[in-house]
Amino acid sequence: MTVDLLFRRIDNLFTMQPDLGGGPLGRIEGAALGLIGGRVAWVGADRDAPDAAQVVDCSGMIGLPGLVDAHTHMVWAGSRAAEFEQRLGGAHYSEILEAGGGILSTVRATRAAGEGELRALAEDRLRRALAQGITTVEIKSGYGLDPVSEAKMLRVARAAGEAVGVRVLTTFLGAHAVPLEYRGRREAYVEHIIAEQLPAVVGLADFIDVYVDRGAFTLEEAERILRAGIAAGLRPRVHAEQVEYTGAAALAARLGATSADHLERLDQAGVEAMAAAGTVAVLLPGAMLYLRDSPPPVEALRAAGVPIALATDLNPGSSPVADLWTIATLGCLSLGLTVEEAVLGITRNAALALGRPALGHLGVGAAGDLILVRPPLGEPPLVSSLVQRLGGHRAEVVVRDGEILWRAPR
Amino acid sequence: MTVDLLFRRIDNLFTMQPDLGGGPLGRIEGAALGLIGGRVAWVGADRDAPDAAQVVDCSGMIGLPGLVDAHTHMVWAGSRAAEFEQRLGGAHYSEILEAGGGILSTVRATRAAGEGELRALAEDRLRRALAQGITTVEIKSGYGLDPVSEAKMLRVARAAGEAVGVRVLTTFLGAHAVPLEYRGRREAYVEHIIAEQLPAVVGLADFIDVYVDRGAFTLEEAERILRAGIAAGLRPRVHAEQVEYTGAAALAARLGATSADHLERLDQAGVEAMAAAGTVAVLLPGAMLYLRDSPPPVEALRAAGVPIALATDLNPGSSPVADLWTIATLGCLSLGLTVEEAVLGITRNAALALGRPALGHLGVGAAGDLILVRPPLGEPPLVSSLVQRLGGHRAEVVVRDGEILWRAPR
Repeated sequence: MTVDLLFRRIDNLFTMQPDLGGGPLGRIEGAALGLIGGRVAWVGADRDAPDAAQVVDCSGMIGLPGLVDAHTHMVWAGSRAAEFEQRLGGAHYSEILEAGGGILSTVRATRAAGEGELRALAEDRLRRALAQGITTVEIKSGYGLDPVSEAKMLRVARAAGEAVGVRVLTTFLGAHAVPLEYRGRREAYVEHIIAEQLPAVVGLADFIDVYVDRGAFTLEEAERILRAGIAAGLRPRVHAEQVEYTGAAALAARLGATSADHLERLDQAGVEAMAAAGTVAVLLPGAMLYLRDSPPPVEALRAAGVPIALATDLNPGSSPVADLWTIATLGCLSLGLTVEEAVLGITRNAALALGRPALGHLGVGAAGDLILVRPPLGEPPLVSSLVQRLGGHRAEVVVRDGEILWRAPR
Repeated sequence: MTVDLLFRRIDNLFTMQPDLGGGPLGRIEGAALGLIGGRVAWVGADRDAPDAAQVVDCSGMIGLPGLVDAHTHMVWAGSRAAEFEQRLGGAHYSEILEAGGGILSTVRATRAAGEGELRALAEDRLRRALAQGITTVEIKSGYGLDPVSEAKMLRVARAAGEAVGVRVLTTFLGAHAVPLEYRGRREAYVEHIIAEQLPAVVGLADFIDVYVDRGAFTLEEAERILRAGIAAGLRPRVHAEQVEYTGAAALAARLGATSADHLERLDQAGVEAMAAAGTVAVLLPGAMLYLRDSPPPVEALRAAGVPIALATDLNPGSSPVADLWTIATLGCLSLGLTVEEAVLGITRNAALALGRPALGHLGVGAAGDLILVRPPLGEPPLVSSLVQRLGGHRAEVVVRDGEILWRAPR
C-alpha cells in the first residue's frame, strides 16, 4: 500500500477508537497515520508504516482527530461587554432578555450588520478555532429572527467556513427569542417562524433548534417548530433544561434529535429518554461559569450511558469562551468529568451530537481530520498534559479531509 | 518638552490613576503617553501631545500599564498531569502532599533538573507571560527545599527574567513543604531553613514567604522563619488561610507583610488586621477553581478597604493557569469582583502587593511599563471587552522601562 500523506513518529496518537486497543482513547504509542483521498487509510505502529508520497515527521507531538465544537453561536455583530458588567452587578440573564437586552441587543446589531462585516467577524473567530485544532464547528442562526436576517446568518456561516477551511454545520434557530416586533404575540411569531423563516433557510441549514425555557419558547411551541423543520428536511436539536425544567430533553429524544444541549436542570426521566433514544448530551461549562449556574446531572448521564459532548457555546453574552481546550478542562473541574471523558467530549461524542459518525476518531475509513499538538514544554506527550492546563493550546499542524490547512508559525 | 518615545492616538488609555479623572481606572479617551529615560514623562489628551524623538501610532488600541503577576511558582521541572487525574478521582490536595506527592513530586524533579533545563522551562513560561502584556512577575522558590536547590531556583528565576526582559521579583519559600528527608522532624527542618537555606539565598531573594496550613507549617514556625528572613533583609509575604484557618493573615499584617495570599478561609479579625496594616490581599481564583474551593470573603475585604490583587499562582499542581487575563475574568465570575476591581487587581494593587508603588499605573513619574492591546474584533476599546471574554488576549506592543520588548507578529 502507498498512501498520499503519511504522518510518522507521532509520540502518542489518540484515535478515539478503543477497538484499536490502548484504553478508552485508543492510544497508539509511536504511531503513524496514512491518508488516501482525504480519508484515513492506515493507522498503526510507526515501524509498520506503509510507503507514502509525502511524509510529515511528528516527533514530540500528540496526535488527535480534528476537534469538533458542536454548539456555537459564532456569527454575531455588536458587543455585550456592558451586559457582562450588569450581570456582575446582580441582574439575571433572563431578566436582561425580558427587558429587551441580552440576545435581543445582539439581534439589533446583527440585523444591522452588512454581510461583509458579519463574514469578517465570523472568519476571525473561525481562524482562532482552527489554530486550536478545531476542524468542525456547528454554528446557529438566531440573531436574525426574520427571514432575511436568519438566511443572512446561515449564508455567512457557510461562506466563512469555506473561506477559512473549517467544516461548518449550520443550525436554524429562529426560535432563539421572541423579537421585539412580536412582543406579546409569541403565538404569531411561532407561525412566522414556520411559515416565513423556515422556507427562507431550507438549503442553508443542516439542523433546526429551539430554545425551550423561561423567557423563550414552551414545550408545545417547540414541538410544532421542530416537526415543521423535520418535515422540511432538517434534523432536530434542542436547547433544553437550562434555566427552568420544561421536559425539552425528553421531547428531543422523542423527536429523534441528535442532541439535547445545556441540561443543567435535566431530571431522571429526561436522562432515561435520552439514553433510550441515543440522544447526545451536549454540556456547556462556559455558560455554567458565566451564569454561575449549577452543573447538569453528569453522574446520572454517565450511569445511563448517555454520550456526553462538550462545546464552547461561543456567543457574545452567556458564554464568550472561544477556547475548546479551556472547555475540556472546565468539563473536568466544574462537571466532574475524567480527562478521557472530556477529550471524547470534544471529539467522538461531539461528532455524534452532529450526526457525523465519520468525524472525531481516526480508524480506517474515518475522515482525514488529524491535528498534532506539542505538549507544554517539560510535559509528557499525553492528553492529560493538555487538559490539566487551563487553555491556550495551539495545534502545530491541522489536517482536514486530508489537506494540511494550518501549520503553526515558527 | 520633547519626550524620547511617544505613544499617540491610543483609543482609551487606562492609567489606573483616578486622580487624572476618568473614573476608578483613570481612563483618558484619545490619549497619548510620553516616556523619558524609561519613565512616564507626559500623559494626557493626544491633541496636547508633546514633541518626540520616536512616535508609535496606537489607533484602535487599549493602553494599560504593564500587567503584574504577583504570585507565581514559575520555576519548576516535571509534570503533575497524573496528579490532576488523581484529584479528579477524588483525592484531596493535602492528602496527596501528605503521601509524598504533590509539591514533593515537583521537588524531586526540580532538584534533579540542571540549571540550563530549568532556565529553558522558566524562559518559555516568561515569554508567554510577556506576550499577554505582563511586565512584572513574582517567582517563588520552594521546590528545592535544600540550600543548593533553593538558590538554584532563585538564580534561574532572575536569569530567566534578564533573558526574556520581564521584571522578576523573587521570593524565598523554603517553608513550602517539609521535604521527605525531614519527614517527622519538622522542627529540625525549620532550624535548617533558618540556619542553612536562608544564608544561601540572601542576595537572591526579595521576599520571604511561608505556607502556613494543614500539612505545611504552623503559625509559630512561620513567625520564627519570617522574623529570621526580615532580619536578613527580606520582606515578608504569607500563604495564608487556604485549606485551614490558622491566623496567618493577622500574622502577616503584624509583621508588615506586603501581602497575604489565598485567604479562602480568612475571618473578620484577619480582614481588620490586614486593613489596619495596609496588607494587600492576593486572591488566586486559579487555585480555587482547581481545588474546587469556596471563595475568600471578598465583600468583607472590600468593606474594610483592603486592596485586592489577583494572580495566576502559576504552578504545576494546584493552579496550572498561565493566563492572567483568564484570572481577571475568573475574579469577576468566581469571586464577584467588578471589572474595574479585576483590572486594578492585575495592575496597581498587584504592584502594591510586591511593594513596588511605581508599577501598575501610568501617572507622570511611574515606571515606563505600557502595553497596547487590540480589543477582540467588533468590540469597543474598553477593558470590559477584554475581561468579558475568557482569556486568550495578546498584547500588540509591550514596553518595559521605556523599551519596546515585544510586538505581536503580523
